[in-house]
Amino acid sequence: ITQKMGGCSSQSCHHCFFEYETERMIVVKSKVVGSVFRLIQFLILFYVIGYVCVVQKSYQETDSVVSSVTTKVKGTGFTNTSDLGARVWDVADYNIPPQGESSFFVLTNMIVTPNQTQSTCPEVSCIQTGLCMNYSETVKTCEVLSWCPLEIDINLPEHALLVAAEDFTVLIKNSVTYPKFNFHKRNILPDVNSSYLKQCEFNRKTDPDCPIFRLKDMVSEAEEDFQTMAIRGGVLGIMIDWNCDLDWPEHYCGPKYSFRRLDNKIPENNVAPGYNFRFAKYYKTTDGRETRTLIKAYGIRFDVIVFGTAGKFNMVPTIVNVGAALTFLSLVSSVKWSHLQNTHYL
Amino acid sequence: ITQKMGGCSSQSCHHCFFEYETERMIVVKSKVVGSVFRLIQFLILFYVIGYVCVVQKSYQETDSVVSSVTTKVKGTGFTNTSDLGARVWDVADYNIPPQGESSFFVLTNMIVTPNQTQSTCPEVSCIQTGLCMNYSETVKTCEVLSWCPLEIDINLPEHALLVAAEDFTVLIKNSVTYPKFNFHKRNILPDVNSSYLKQCEFNRKTDPDCPIFRLKDMVSEAEEDFQTMAIRGGVLGIMIDWNCDLDWPEHYCGPKYSFRRLDNKIPENNVAPGYNFRFAKYYKTTDGRETRTLIKAYGIRFDVIVFGTAGKFNMVPTIVNVGAALTFLSLVSSVKWSHLQNTHYL
Amino acid sequence: ITQKMGGCSSQSCHHCFFEYETERMIVVKSKVVGSVFRLIQFLILFYVIGYVCVVQKSYQETDSVVSSVTTKVKGTGFTNTSDLGARVWDVADYNIPPQGESSFFVLTNMIVTPNQTQSTCPEVSCIQTGLCMNYSETVKTCEVLSWCPLEIDINLPEHALLVAAEDFTVLIKNSVTYPKFNFHKRNILPDVNSSYLKQCEFNRKTDPDCPIFRLKDMVSEAEEDFQTMAIRGGVLGIMIDWNCDLDWPEHYCGPKYSFRRLDNKIPENNVAPGYNFRFAKYYKTTDGRETRTLIKAYGIRFDVIVFGTAGKFNMVPTIVNVGAALTFLSLVSSVKWSHLQNTHYL
Repeated sequence: ITQKMGGCSSQSCHHCFFEYETERMIVVKSKVVGSVFRLIQFLILFYVIGYVCVVQKSYQETDSVVSSVTTKVKGTGFTNTSDLGARVWDVADYNIPPQGESSFFVLTNMIVTPNQTQSTCPEVSCIQTGLCMNYSETVKTCEVLSWCPLEIDINLPEHALLVAAEDFTVLIKNSVTYPKFNFHKRNILPDVNSSYLKQCEFNRKTDPDCPIFRLKDMVSEAEEDFQTMAIRGGVLGIMIDWNCDLDWPEHYCGPKYSFRRLDNKIPENNVAPGYNFRFAKYYKTTDGRETRTLIKAYGIRFDVIVFGTAGKFNMVPTIVNVGAALTFLSLVSSVKWSHLQNTHYL
Repeated sequence: ITQKMGGCSSQSCHHCFFEYETERMIVVKSKVVGSVFRLIQFLILFYVIGYVCVVQKSYQETDSVVSSVTTKVKGTGFTNTSDLGARVWDVADYNIPPQGESSFFVLTNMIVTPNQTQSTCPEVSCIQTGLCMNYSETVKTCEVLSWCPLEIDINLPEHALLVAAEDFTVLIKNSVTYPKFNFHKRNILPDVNSSYLKQCEFNRKTDPDCPIFRLKDMVSEAEEDFQTMAIRGGVLGIMIDWNCDLDWPEHYCGPKYSFRRLDNKIPENNVAPGYNFRFAKYYKTTDGRETRTLIKAYGIRFDVIVFGTAGKFNMVPTIVNVGAALTFLSLVSSVKWSHLQNTHYL
Repeated sequence: ITQKMGGCSSQSCHHCFFEYETERMIVVKSKVVGSVFRLIQFLILFYVIGYVCVVQKSYQETDSVVSSVTTKVKGTGFTNTSDLGARVWDVADYNIPPQGESSFFVLTNMIVTPNQTQSTCPEVSCIQTGLCMNYSETVKTCEVLSWCPLEIDINLPEHALLVAAEDFTVLIKNSVTYPKFNFHKRNILPDVNSSYLKQCEFNRKTDPDCPIFRLKDMVSEAEEDFQTMAIRGGVLGIMIDWNCDLDWPEHYCGPKYSFRRLDNKIPENNVAPGYNFRFAKYYKTTDGRETRTLIKAYGIRFDVIVFGTAGKFNMVPTIVNVGAALTFLSLVSSVKWSHLQNTHYL
């Protein structure tokens, strides 16, 4: 008897079961329950390996991208209008600001008001001098002190003035850093040579690594029509996704380009649709008076938006995730155990 | 006896206690200890539900915001000074750069040095030609090659030149993306119509969704005085907070605006207080010589700063956090258990 | 006997062991096994305290930096070329854009094409009028409508035009915010006074807190030669690292500066090496015709890149990490326990 009592730990209880418990039903139940719990344990293991490790990569610590972008637009356009005459547009004319930052603007349409001087002219708003002038033969409006003549921006040209803009190309140079991992890379990949770069053009299928983009192609990828967008202007996002798994060789970490229109096309809840701004070129006349040419510029602003997260194996998140999974595993084991015991006593 | 021995698992020990242990003190102790541990278990559960889930939302995975901003300033000002005469300022004059980027500058004060040419004039610094000239009737300084006449920036106008600037308004269009959740939204909310947008003005209480801001209101919200700030210039941050819980309907995810002065007002540990920069307008005289008008521009730079984190339910952080809580729960249970047993044997 | 049976929990089994198990070998084994498991438990505790807490600071919640940057370049240069003559360059001439944003450009070299007008001239590309003209006495090329005369950018000056640029200085003002912790700080630290700021210059050893940087020093720190880089231009990253442990006093949270060249020097896989852009100054002749001076500007673009993560103690990550460690601890204990029991029964 004492021998048996010495074995009265939880382990020996299995012996007890099989010695004294001969009812078939209980045994069958125990098998079913056992297999159910084995299944649950398998599911938890499957979750840990399949979902946590493979899909979510929770064993990694992460860092956000730090980025620098340079852009360079190329192309020449030609317009022939009644007020400006035949005119050639090169990059110094249509690219504003010219420095090639991550956000650049290509002029496609405009309202030009030349030879403005600080003087008085007939209009409604602005600073009123209190005098009235003939705006037209039938309408009298107040006299204003302003840059005269005033801009008339009611008649926006129906067609994009700078039709050729759709064939302009832009070279985007992007240098990224993940400071936590001391990782640096450029969007011009090491295996691309300079002779290829001189003549290539980005194409998702044939030339996915070429950093030179045709403006029309980018607008098309965003499911917009370039000539329609060019009339009133707009904002196009050039998204560069640098999500990387740095446990793999550096080779696998590269930029993924996508394009999306960022301004609102829907006229219902919109104000000042499209994209435009006013700027002026200032001149001096021979008698020293200042004149300016006011330009209301419509066009497409391209915003290069770089984002991404890099992950690399790290002990801490691994321990945390494996620990959590083990907790569930042990919980299942203890539930199974107490269940079996309860079964026995019922 | 064998029957009883079959039950010698930890469960049956409760029976043992109550069969053989009749001392009142032990039972009372056990009740106190039991209720203490129940309380601890309750606190852990409360922590899991209340703090982890409700306050910290640790069951969510997160993503950082990706943003694009367009700004458009409106308003006309008027100045009347001895050197420039009566003059009207429109957006093309005072808004630098004009493209409507996330950082824009409104000119409020300036020192204008017109008709500068590359020539020699009397001054101290700059490139010295080695000759001396009469700076004034009593002081002789070195002759310098420079843009002459030199700028005299000692006498900064005491009042902001462009008083009207406080009533200018700015329309801010902000488009955000959470790439991980494929979530896109604009600060012009879908339920706002365009007729409202044409006449509204942001007010924290009455018009919190209007994206048009009066400059003075923004400066006031940052607890600064516009006219004081306008004299020497400054930098004002327009913070747009897009923190969102994407488990809730999209409707609840909206921008929260706040305003803060970003430059240092304290003169003790400051250099070049305020905000100013120099730029020039270049002209050519009839004989082909280049002249320029140098402008030292004082004003307020508005930086639209967009930040935020979106969270959405995800299995991994949920498992991790629930697992950690369960570990504590089971730890408490085992402590309780061994404590009870120790009590019994002591 | 009943007394003993009442003790038939897992605790009492120790008594059982020592009563009936007298074999020495088992006891020795148990000691070895016990010390191994103690060691493992110690390692886990060491990992929790040493690695998770001290190195990785996993008990903290984190926030990413929100930043605003102002820059101001100072210095005057002098050039003497055959086409432009002796000429002084001040900040309004060489600093583009002039507003002092986080990205600023210093002009060091240039190709100037003055007096361009919209007219026809002999060239190859551009819009062809179909007529042929004498390009030189021996070569005939097509007549083009363009800004004439055309820019000849083959002969890039071999030496940086603006030699003095290396001694220009830049004042960088950086204001950062960690919105989650409501933490604000500037790179001009509170203990620095304004008289020091007026004459200091950044030096990693002697003046690490001075926010005024000599351009040449920054390029040197990036292991580049200023004069070489100035010929074709380039992009230099000024990285400001604001990684902070906010559990420590605010005093310890400061900016760390580093410098890195961001564009690609390697000619093999490069296109348009260096950094340049074209811009134009527009003039009007006395008869009202527009002329322009086209400038192909080479120089160094400085990108101030601010990054960092702040951490502060928070219950949730602490619980998660301690929980995970405890799971491992308890796992080791249970393995030990079952092992001992198995030993006993074998």
